[in-house]
Amino acid sequence: MNAPLPQDALAAGPAAGSVRPDTAQTLSARRERQQRLVSALSGVLPAHALLWHAEDTIPYECDGLSAYRERPLLVALPETEAQVAAVLRTCRELSVPVVARGAGTGLSGGAMPHRDGVTLSLAKFSRILKVDPRERVAVVQCGVRNLAISEAAAPYGLYYAPDPSSQIACTIGGNVAENSGGVHCLKYGLTLHNVLKVRGYTIDGEAVEFGGLSLDAPGLDLLSVVIGSEGMLAVVTEVVVRLIPRPQLARCIMASFPTVETAGEAVAEIIASGIIPAGLEMMDKPMTAAVEDFVHAGYDLDAAAILLCESDGTPEEVEEEIGRMTEVLTRCGASGIEVSRDEAQRLKFWSGRKNAFPASGRISPDYMCMDSTIPRRRLADMLRAIAAMEDRHGLRCCNVFHAGDGNLHPLILFDANDPDQLRRAEAFGAEILELSVEMGGTITGEHGVGVEKLNSMCVQFSPEELAMMIAVKHAFDAPGLLNPGKAIPTLHRCAEYGKMHVRRGLLPFSELPRF
Amino acid sequence: MNAPLPQDALAAGPAAGSVRPDTAQTLSARRERQQRLVSALSGVLPAHALLWHAEDTIPYECDGLSAYRERPLLVALPETEAQVAAVLRTCRELSVPVVARGAGTGLSGGAMPHRDGVTLSLAKFSRILKVDPRERVAVVQCGVRNLAISEAAAPYGLYYAPDPSSQIACTIGGNVAENSGGVHCLKYGLTLHNVLKVRGYTIDGEAVEFGGLSLDAPGLDLLSVVIGSEGMLAVVTEVVVRLIPRPQLARCIMASFPTVETAGEAVAEIIASGIIPAGLEMMDKPMTAAVEDFVHAGYDLDAAAILLCESDGTPEEVEEEIGRMTEVLTRCGASGIEVSRDEAQRLKFWSGRKNAFPASGRISPDYMCMDSTIPRRRLADMLRAIAAMEDRHGLRCCNVFHAGDGNLHPLILFDANDPDQLRRAEAFGAEILELSVEMGGTITGEHGVGVEKLNSMCVQFSPEELAMMIAVKHAFDAPGLLNPGKAIPTLHRCAEYGKMHVRRGLLPFSELPRF
Repeated sequence: MNAPLPQDALAAGPAAGSVRPDTAQTLSARRERQQRLVSALSGVLPAHALLWHAEDTIPYECDGLSAYRERPLLVALPETEAQVAAVLRTCRELSVPVVARGAGTGLSGGAMPHRDGVTLSLAKFSRILKVDPRERVAVVQCGVRNLAISEAAAPYGLYYAPDPSSQIACTIGGNVAENSGGVHCLKYGLTLHNVLKVRGYTIDGEAVEFGGLSLDAPGLDLLSVVIGSEGMLAVVTEVVVRLIPRPQLARCIMASFPTVETAGEAVAEIIASGIIPAGLEMMDKPMTAAVEDFVHAGYDLDAAAILLCESDGTPEEVEEEIGRMTEVLTRCGASGIEVSRDEAQRLKFWSGRKNAFPASGRISPDYMCMDSTIPRRRLADMLRAIAAMEDRHGLRCCNVFHAGDGNLHPLILFDANDPDQLRRAEAFGAEILELSVEMGGTITGEHGVGVEKLNSMCVQFSPEELAMMIAVKHAFDAPGLLNPGKAIPTLHRCAEYGKMHVRRGLLPFSELPRF
Repeated sequence: MNAPLPQDALAAGPAAGSVRPDTAQTLSARRERQQRLVSALSGVLPAHALLWHAEDTIPYECDGLSAYRERPLLVALPETEAQVAAVLRTCRELSVPVVARGAGTGLSGGAMPHRDGVTLSLAKFSRILKVDPRERVAVVQCGVRNLAISEAAAPYGLYYAPDPSSQIACTIGGNVAENSGGVHCLKYGLTLHNVLKVRGYTIDGEAVEFGGLSLDAPGLDLLSVVIGSEGMLAVVTEVVVRLIPRPQLARCIMASFPTVETAGEAVAEIIASGIIPAGLEMMDKPMTAAVEDFVHAGYDLDAAAILLCESDGTPEEVEEEIGRMTEVLTRCGASGIEVSRDEAQRLKFWSGRKNAFPASGRISPDYMCMDSTIPRRRLADMLRAIAAMEDRHGLRCCNVFHAGDGNLHPLILFDANDPDQLRRAEAFGAEILELSVEMGGTITGEHGVGVEKLNSMCVQFSPEELAMMIAVKHAFDAPGLLNPGKAIPTLHRCAEYGKMHVRRGLLPFSELPRF
């Protein structure tokens, strides 16, 4: 979705996320704040590390959620940790919000600039400091790209497991901020499970370290709360990641199903049988049609839904697991099963899945990518409900799921140039999120909350729970200057949104109808 | 170590952890506070659920760290969540500290009573609410014993992985408080990695839930910060745990080594070769001698150190892994290798390891069990350093390590009736902890901080990091009434202890000499 480009560096509207157009008066006040900031930061950063002219800040006005745009007062590009600390101290003194930014590939607007703030780009922190094959860790700066870590570890037969679709571009710092996953996270875990330690800076410019190289650490586990905190607690500059041995072999099954119900059932059955596949993805017919037309992955276009089930390990393990999965899939009514013959065919199967988003872009002017989770066994219920919503909202939806962990990515197709379609798409999306929570799931599986899902947080959490998150935020960042307005809604906002949180009436778990 | 039993319910001295003897005046003030508390709690709990007479509170005066004892004003034994909430609200109103308690098997004094507080025993919360083999989860009340979960899941071929040595007695609530591990946590993770969700109450008596059944959850990851928080953030009443399929087969190698250096090297090499054994334990010669005399596990008494290396999985996987481990152990200089022939012999190998602590109790009037971690490759260095400390402090030490994850349990032997020996044992222990931190490790691997290691926390963490933990504690428990005086030292205490934190001078990781 493209918003019209503003003519002036400071007149950052009227894109979808922008609240009000600037008046001459507010414009002049902003200019003054900007000049004060430029002058203060010129004392701590070289001139080339400060961008504030319109043409320089435009590339930073959104992240992957391009429907929301904002221009910062200034973009800072520090090159050393001392400079990061100095920028933070300066912003703290001037009470200026700071939004840290990696590659800007996030999908929930977590790195969208603050109109009165500094965007702190960490692009220059791109060094791999150490790969230690014996301890199986890598020490990297926050701006290192996800895939670059695995490339550096490859000579030792090791790799970094979490593999978001954007892994060629996204940075480990952004992965830490969003607790990123990927198609293999069912077996290998999220960023949280693969990062041992981070080093960063508080809003006061104090260096802090969280986590350690041991399995457990004494004291409160602040590493886990920092991972996934969307830049609201500290600015992470250095990360120690766990490396794991690359499996000797991987093979992938493509299984066709005559109905979405049987496909959903097969997913639940595979997990219930004790198998943890390296990947377990589901696509419905509209999705495979869009993809096949684009990348020719060899998908079965007659199937109502297909599953991709991957096994990795030693050749013996893979053979045994492929056999067991084939048995379960057949028992659940698969109408066709094809196992990748070689690495080329396996990669072809995955190329379809990995291109699902751009494939949707080819068949619709715009699409809205949802990201919620539900219990695995509700997959078919959700697909039926989405079909009913398509009729109700008069919009089409393609479905691609990380089915193994119940993470949905419905892609709602619409035309953003039609305000009514945008409104209906937003309502459609909100309905999916609320149904996910009702089913016992969550409003985000891996893309984060950002600005996109602030209202949905009111649905997911009780006021007490949100108050606790706000208090923890305050414990790290008392002035509230790190990425304000993201991830955790104010209680006031929730009251205005007017939604009761529907997760559960604090029933004991045992009384919940289903997981 | 036994302390003399006090004569009166309120005169809770003069055990090791007790600061001052009671005067007539303080005794009378305590009596008054106690009466006020009894009267207030009588309104919310039935009479049989309140214990405050001397003979009734004695059993609660310590946990597994019996060197430190204190008598609470009162022990409350609620039976419902509503009662837990009411006790907490009452204590909040009266500003009375609350110490939650499970089975009292903790080893760091985390459940030691507060002399002016309520001990909240959760013994009545012992119901298994649900075992769901399909979703592979169990929903249990906090007072359910660790082993009881696996027993309930056994009919489905499932079990709960973390297995602390006390698993027959310790409760899941205590495991959550201490983030407990066990001999299999190298492969299967700690409590943190096996608990999906908890339900509990704040000091205000508000119900809260943390975590969820999805792989990721939106918002801040408060579940991780609650796990291992030693009862300082909330009182957990219900836990959803992950169940995993019981492996078809397990076999264990006992490998003998002529020197501790070669044994330590073999541990590092096994991990570096990409194997993650189901268990990887190390015992030195004094330890095997003490154990063999006690349980006749069949250990090689000529070896300077032995390793126990377990493999589990399908028969094919086990055979392959046992083969690879045998190859590495031989290459590293093992002087003998014996693989368990059957389940009986495997259990015999482990019975020795699991009885290491009581075996030490047989050869010495008292022992102090340390629990620190170091990088695996420093195992031999640490054993050499401990040998030098034995000479310096004039005390013997047996060594048993969870070697695979670098978690040490040196057992310092001494006689507590000799005050000089006690003093020397404490100095010996502190030296081990500080050396562990210097080597890049931590002061506790799995037993928690409790009251035992408060000073060592000052060595482990910087003032900024401790301040952040204190702020998070405050975010959950503003009045500071949940288990005060445990786990996180005040900055004042650290200043008095007078130790610089030695972990690192906030060097970038890359400049650290070693992990």
